[in-house]
Amino acid sequence: MKQSQMLVHTLKENPADAEIKSHQLLVRAGYIRQIASGVYSFLPLGKRVLRKVEEIVREEMDKAGAHEMLMSALQPAELWQESGRWNTYGAELMRLRDRHEREFALGATHEEVITSLVRDSIKSYKRLPLMVYQIQNKFRDEKRPRFGLLRGREFLMKDAYSFNESFESLNESYEKMFTAYSNVFTRCGLDFRAVIADSGQMGGKDTHEFMVLSEVGEDVIAYSDTSDYAANVEMAPVINQSSPSDQEPANLEKVATPDQKTMQEVADFLGHSLAEGLKSIMFKVDDQFVLVVTRGDHEVNDIKLKNLYDADIVDLATEEDTHSLMGTGFGSLGPVNAPDSVDVIADFAVEPLVNVTCGANEAGFHYTNVNPGRDFHVKEYADLRFIKEGDPSPDGNGHIKFARGIEVGHVFKLGRFYAENMNATFLDDQGKSQTMVMGSYGIGVSRTLAAIVEQYNDERGITWPANIAPYQVHLLSLNPKKEEQKELADQLYEQLQAAGIEVLYDDRKERAGVKFADSDLFGIPIRITVGKRASEGVVEVKERTSGEQADLNQNEIIHHVQTWYNSK
Amino acid sequence: MKQSQMLVHTLKENPADAEIKSHQLLVRAGYIRQIASGVYSFLPLGKRVLRKVEEIVREEMDKAGAHEMLMSALQPAELWQESGRWNTYGAELMRLRDRHEREFALGATHEEVITSLVRDSIKSYKRLPLMVYQIQNKFRDEKRPRFGLLRGREFLMKDAYSFNESFESLNESYEKMFTAYSNVFTRCGLDFRAVIADSGQMGGKDTHEFMVLSEVGEDVIAYSDTSDYAANVEMAPVINQSSPSDQEPANLEKVATPDQKTMQEVADFLGHSLAEGLKSIMFKVDDQFVLVVTRGDHEVNDIKLKNLYDADIVDLATEEDTHSLMGTGFGSLGPVNAPDSVDVIADFAVEPLVNVTCGANEAGFHYTNVNPGRDFHVKEYADLRFIKEGDPSPDGNGHIKFARGIEVGHVFKLGRFYAENMNATFLDDQGKSQTMVMGSYGIGVSRTLAAIVEQYNDERGITWPANIAPYQVHLLSLNPKKEEQKELADQLYEQLQAAGIEVLYDDRKERAGVKFADSDLFGIPIRITVGKRASEGVVEVKERTSGEQADLNQNEIIHHVQTWYNSK
Repeated sequence: MKQSQMLVHTLKENPADAEIKSHQLLVRAGYIRQIASGVYSFLPLGKRVLRKVEEIVREEMDKAGAHEMLMSALQPAELWQESGRWNTYGAELMRLRDRHEREFALGATHEEVITSLVRDSIKSYKRLPLMVYQIQNKFRDEKRPRFGLLRGREFLMKDAYSFNESFESLNESYEKMFTAYSNVFTRCGLDFRAVIADSGQMGGKDTHEFMVLSEVGEDVIAYSDTSDYAANVEMAPVINQSSPSDQEPANLEKVATPDQKTMQEVADFLGHSLAEGLKSIMFKVDDQFVLVVTRGDHEVNDIKLKNLYDADIVDLATEEDTHSLMGTGFGSLGPVNAPDSVDVIADFAVEPLVNVTCGANEAGFHYTNVNPGRDFHVKEYADLRFIKEGDPSPDGNGHIKFARGIEVGHVFKLGRFYAENMNATFLDDQGKSQTMVMGSYGIGVSRTLAAIVEQYNDERGITWPANIAPYQVHLLSLNPKKEEQKELADQLYEQLQAAGIEVLYDDRKERAGVKFADSDLFGIPIRITVGKRASEGVVEVKERTSGEQADLNQNEIIHHVQTWYNSK
Repeated sequence: MKQSQMLVHTLKENPADAEIKSHQLLVRAGYIRQIASGVYSFLPLGKRVLRKVEEIVREEMDKAGAHEMLMSALQPAELWQESGRWNTYGAELMRLRDRHEREFALGATHEEVITSLVRDSIKSYKRLPLMVYQIQNKFRDEKRPRFGLLRGREFLMKDAYSFNESFESLNESYEKMFTAYSNVFTRCGLDFRAVIADSGQMGGKDTHEFMVLSEVGEDVIAYSDTSDYAANVEMAPVINQSSPSDQEPANLEKVATPDQKTMQEVADFLGHSLAEGLKSIMFKVDDQFVLVVTRGDHEVNDIKLKNLYDADIVDLATEEDTHSLMGTGFGSLGPVNAPDSVDVIADFAVEPLVNVTCGANEAGFHYTNVNPGRDFHVKEYADLRFIKEGDPSPDGNGHIKFARGIEVGHVFKLGRFYAENMNATFLDDQGKSQTMVMGSYGIGVSRTLAAIVEQYNDERGITWPANIAPYQVHLLSLNPKKEEQKELADQLYEQLQAAGIEVLYDDRKERAGVKFADSDLFGIPIRITVGKRASEGVVEVKERTSGEQADLNQNEIIHHVQTWYNSK
């Protein structure tokens, strides 16, 4: 393709709102342009890389036995009312009315549509399992779209669905998809982890997120330094590792801590570590007030609290509540003499503690030599805290490290949630009606593209992996006004194309510096520069990533490029 | 692909709302399913044929030098306000508000978005011409969606745009696109015509529609029986072919026609042909009342009237208007003694008429022996009527025939409409700022698919052209319970796939009759049936379209199929 006739326009400056590399570089290099907040168009270069990612996804889906289809973006409200999500999905679901005032959703996901299609088509166990997928623009009205393609309001997604006759069969489909996802992200050259995740809004149970490791990721992953264990930090259980103390319990004392506001200040004042203080936080769990006690150096994980109570809503109590129940504000709470109306529960790590400190439910005072069990009653000990770096890995192998991740894929075991609500049944081999079991599997295709750029860039621009780059070769004619340069470049352009090599040809009448800068920004793996030695038939070949370069003869070029790509 | 695991479900009955073959067959054969009125999902079989059409379009666009990109479906209202179409596009444009109450359109077409992208990227004549395209779902809230994929509210479209520095350059881009379109529809096996068309809502001037000839088409095409002339019937000019009459003018007479309401009744009553009467119809052209006179057997074409007056609005006058201006109602209007406030204009065919009949502007009376020019003044003779079958072709070659057509493509010379409204300028080779000249080029991809089915079907189902069919071979195992049949079919399935042949394998445990009926409905060009002679290694091979069949040995199959497809 000749660059002079391509819709591409590079920028010297980063867009004002672009905080991260992929956003900056994809806009600056002319791959994408913003149309509205969180809404992007893909210019020709961008569309080419998008298509390469898409084809990898398509090949792996086909290999997994899923069939491609294409559902509509317009979805009648009635389907979402059947599943119940019309009311629960909230403001993220974009909605509109047609000319007859009929309500529609713009597809944020397609569980409802596919379930309605399958329930009308598939009636027998003989036709299960079934796996389908589509690659299609999705719409979600993010409250705060940001980071370019990472969190947009219209984005390209691959969504797949499995329909199974049993959970055993679902597990098999899930495994196939899990493998396909690993293949996709591996082929995209990404450093990623499959992590145990929360099922959130989708209503599923067993679920993994595929996370690309990146400092700009919005999620924190807890992973083992020796095994392949990885989980969203919110989901990682903490092994109960407490061993009894050999210290003798001393007598409870009440001490004045007049100016000490934080736990650290109290610990410093009393001359002990943060781990020797108790942290007490009051929650309202549905209608029950709960005082959660952890070690001072631990953080309460309210998802674990919610799961312990099997609750719908967990909120922090208000300071009004603590005053009326405990007679004090947040800073002086403690479990000693807590009233019966409040549940006192504590993290496993609290149980073995001896002679620790806690708030005295009285401003300006703390108890010291507090001993759980002796000085206060604990209704239940449980895993209530966030895992920390250095904790033993929950799978028993190695220790936990943290990393940030960009979620590029998600596999869910949905179970019967949609099939039950929408009445998707089949006749089993006994002729008995059964509800289908479903799985749902998503890949953010445009987000994957951005994640690749996050992992493949340097100070001069993008450094695409060989199989994702928009073109294989960037051919530069340094001074096309010179006849011998133009002629050699034109010849090479023809020869490369004839050899089936994807080539972008910078035939513009621009300064050499502009061309080199644009080429580095684009990130095409191999640059071929036709310059001063054109009259000898010699050109410069340079690798974008390594910076290695060599002068080659015109007749060596094709072989060189093909060999290089075959080795990737 | 194994049919037992595919999301497909054939129907015995036509859907109640399906009036035409493509709608009936695509639904019955399980290619598409309706999600809401005018909104369809493509099941796996449908997606495969859609993709084949898409790939043909993509290849021809690339060959024409257009670059693929992908714009967003969400388009901010501001862009449509800039072009002026936010107000003029009307109820067909689907609109919505985001969570911040910002207004958006769902892309019905993308002139605004592409113009905004190009004006921000391209500043110099050196970067023109530029051609881009995308293949993407479009949204139009049709008042009356019907005919399945032919007139839907969400549909797959290829839209392309050219940006040129001059009209000469636009003509070149237009020619390239015209050729690409002819290639696309030829490769799709369609019997089509490129016809001169009205530019309608798009604001363009020179424009052609690509029409697939079909009885169910919503447009009428006037075409020459000997040349390649073809035009939308509304657009075809009529050659002035009138020759002077040798009849002697007789004296004007007023005759009573008490019970004759229609022109035919008057003609019969007075004993002459319809062509010997004058038809007089009153229009309001902007603010001017105009009495248009044509021969009794001709129909007024109000587009021609509008163009003659270069008017914005042409309406029929009300009967109140004719009473107040002419002293009579619609049925008795005539040009004799028309008041000066009314323009009398007449079709060319009226000029040479001698001794004809017209209304007397008095209920129950007509004039006979009327002679234009002598008995009434004609302000202007012009081409004012619809062309008729049998008229000479406007290009001077042959005579006109009518056909109905399905519009599958449309090429427009937009000129400077969008570029002017949206300020898309460039610097020319003199450094002077100029407004860009644009072209716009659309193909209804999903509609093309439906048009193919309209031309390729028989009483048993679809009969796909070889390069559009979802699979190349439909392999049937008639009785998979019999080991030798299952074994041979499984072997053939492997062998066909290994040879790179696309094969759908009906491995279901269904009756032979069901399998044959489904196979005919699907329309895959070659059917291979493994039945009773499986033990001898012999299978039946049948061509879907011709019905030709032969028994072949297992080892002859691959060669037979490859030879057949190579000959297509």
